[in-house]
Amino acid sequence: MSLTTPAPLAINADDIAAAQRRLQGHAHRTPVLTSRTADERTGAQVFFKCENLQRMGAFKFRGAFNALAQFTPEQRQRGVIAFSSGNHAQAVALSARLLGMPSVIVMPHDSPAAKLAATRGYQQGQPVSEVVIYDRYTEDREAIGRRLADERGMTLIPPYDHPHVMAGQGTAAAELLEDTGPLDLLLVCVGGGGLISGCAVAAQAASPGTVVIGVEPEAGNDTQQSLALGRIVHIDTPRTIADGAQTQASGKLTFPVIQRLVQGIVTVSDEQLVRTMRFFAERLKMVVEPTGCLAAAALLEGVVPAKGQRVGVIVSGGNVDLARYAELIGGAASA
Amino acid sequence: MSLTTPAPLAINADDIAAAQRRLQGHAHRTPVLTSRTADERTGAQVFFKCENLQRMGAFKFRGAFNALAQFTPEQRQRGVIAFSSGNHAQAVALSARLLGMPSVIVMPHDSPAAKLAATRGYQQGQPVSEVVIYDRYTEDREAIGRRLADERGMTLIPPYDHPHVMAGQGTAAAELLEDTGPLDLLLVCVGGGGLISGCAVAAQAASPGTVVIGVEPEAGNDTQQSLALGRIVHIDTPRTIADGAQTQASGKLTFPVIQRLVQGIVTVSDEQLVRTMRFFAERLKMVVEPTGCLAAAALLEGVVPAKGQRVGVIVSGGNVDLARYAELIGGAASA
Repeated sequence: MSLTTPAPLAINADDIAAAQRRLQGHAHRTPVLTSRTADERTGAQVFFKCENLQRMGAFKFRGAFNALAQFTPEQRQRGVIAFSSGNHAQAVALSARLLGMPSVIVMPHDSPAAKLAATRGYQQGQPVSEVVIYDRYTEDREAIGRRLADERGMTLIPPYDHPHVMAGQGTAAAELLEDTGPLDLLLVCVGGGGLISGCAVAAQAASPGTVVIGVEPEAGNDTQQSLALGRIVHIDTPRTIADGAQTQASGKLTFPVIQRLVQGIVTVSDEQLVRTMRFFAERLKMVVEPTGCLAAAALLEGVVPAKGQRVGVIVSGGNVDLARYAELIGGAASA
Repeated sequence: MSLTTPAPLAINADDIAAAQRRLQGHAHRTPVLTSRTADERTGAQVFFKCENLQRMGAFKFRGAFNALAQFTPEQRQRGVIAFSSGNHAQAVALSARLLGMPSVIVMPHDSPAAKLAATRGYQQGQPVSEVVIYDRYTEDREAIGRRLADERGMTLIPPYDHPHVMAGQGTAAAELLEDTGPLDLLLVCVGGGGLISGCAVAAQAASPGTVVIGVEPEAGNDTQQSLALGRIVHIDTPRTIADGAQTQASGKLTFPVIQRLVQGIVTVSDEQLVRTMRFFAERLKMVVEPTGCLAAAALLEGVVPAKGQRVGVIVSGGNVDLARYAELIGGAASA
C-alpha cells in the first residue's frame, strides 16, 4: 500500500490574502444583507454577499483586477486581451483603465448593444484600447484572441481558468466570512468554476467547517456531471436564462479545486431563477441578473435544506438588460 | 430694538443621538454606495445612503421604531394606531411586532393588495393587531383613527409630525455623515418633512457647513411655496408617481425646522424620476421607488449643480409594486 501526496491546487489561502491586499481601495467591499423573509422561509440565518453591487456590477472585477495588477511593466505597456461577451469583458476593460493599460476585448457580433457600449465606456481615455467583433458562427474567438495576443504582444486573461483570477474571486467569500464569522453552509453559482474554486479555498481557510455547495442551471449541469464521473465533462452550450453559467466545461485549474473542496452541486430551473429575481426585487430591493440568482434560488426554493443553519449566499452579479429584466420580473406574478 | 430668542425646534442633536442608540441592533445600518457614472455625470463625489435597503424597505422604520420604543408600559399594552396607505403603515406594524405590542393600521379601501398583505404580514403573531379599511371618498381617516384611539386607548403615531418620528428619521443622515465625514451638500426628498427635518438637524450637528436642499415632485411643491410665503401652504393632493410625497402640507413641527435649517427646495418631474429609477436599476443594481428617486434626480438631472462638491443623497425607499415597476423601467429607454 502506497500513500501519494495529492497534487497541489492552483491556489491557496495566501493567494487570496494577497489578492485582498491588491484589491484594497480598488474593489468595493460589498455589503452583506439579511432578510427576515428569507430567514422565515428557510428556517436558516441567511447572509447575502452582494456582488451585484460590486464595481461594474459583478464579482468578475475582483479576478480581473487581481490578474492585471500582477502584470510586469512590460506586460502593462503592451496591455491585456480578453474574449468574453459578458461580465469578464467589462471587468478586464475597467481594470485595464484603472491600471492605465491598453485593452482589447473580443466580443461576438450579436452581443447586446448595451454590453458593447458599457465595455467601450470602460475603455474610454485608454489609448489603443478597442473592442474587436467576431462572427460567433463562422469564427473561433480563441484563435482570434491568440492571434491578436501574438501579433501585439498582449497578455491574454481567460475568464476563469487562471490562478490570479481564481484567487481574486475568492476574496468575495473571504470578505463575507470576515463579516459573518464561521458559516455552516456556503452557496455559490458555478459557470467555469472561477468563483466557486476561489470561494472554497477562502472558506476552507477562514471557516473549515463550512460545507460549500455549487449551483448550476438545470440545463447546464456539466460540473455536476464532471464530479459524478471524476473528469471534466463537456456539454453543448446550454439553453438557460443564466447567461453567465452557459459554460460548456469546468477549467483544468478550477475542477481539481472543486473536486477537493466542494461537497456537492445542485441545479435550479429557469422558472426558479425568475421567482428568485422577483424575490430580490421585492424583498431586498436589488436588481440581480439570472446567473446571480442561482445560489439564492437553491436555498429559497428548498433545493438545499438549511433549517437551523447559518448560510452564506454569493449574489454574483446584476448586469441584465433593463428591458429584458422588466419583462422577466413583470410577467404573471408567481413569487 | 429688541432681540428675541428664536423658539426652540421640536428636536435637537441629542434627540437624534438617543434615537441612534434606540435603533442599534433593530434598524439596519444601510450601506452608502458610490457610482463612477454618477460622479462623472455630475462632476461631484456622490454618496448614496440606501434606505431602500432598510428594514421594510424604507427609512420610515427608523421614525416608527424610535417612537414606539419610547412608549410607557401602559401604552405598550394598549398598542399603537396609525393611518397610512404607505410605508409608515408597514413601519409601524413591523415596529409594533418587534416590540411585542398590538397595532391597528387604518388603510384606504383602494390600497394595493400587496401593501395590505405586507402590512398584515408584519402584524403576524401579534394578538389584537388588525388592518381597518375605510372608504377614501366617504370617510375621514383621521376621525376613524382618533375614534379607535379613544375607544381602545391606543396611541396614535402620525407619519411625520411627531418629534420622535422626526428624530428617528434623522438617524439616516447621522449614519451617512459618520461614514463619509463632512459633506458640502445633502439632498433629501420632502413629503410631510419628517425625513428632511431630522436630517437637517443631524447635518447641522455633524457637519455644520453642509447645505441641505429638499426635493419635491413638480406637481406637489407645497413646501417650496410654504418657504416662499413663510407659512404652511396647503395644496390639493398632487398627481405624481412619487406617492410617498403626495402630502398636502408640511407639518406644524417639521416646517419650522425646514425654515431654519434647509437652504432651499427644488422640484423634479415624473419623467426625471423614471429616468432616475432606470439609472438606479442599471448602474447601482437597486430597486428604488419613485419617491426614493427625488433627491437623486435633482442631482443627476442637473437641477442642483454640484461640480467639485462632496454630495450626500438620501435614497429613501424601494417599495413599489413589481408589475408597476417593470412597466416604468421597461418603457421606451431614455436613460
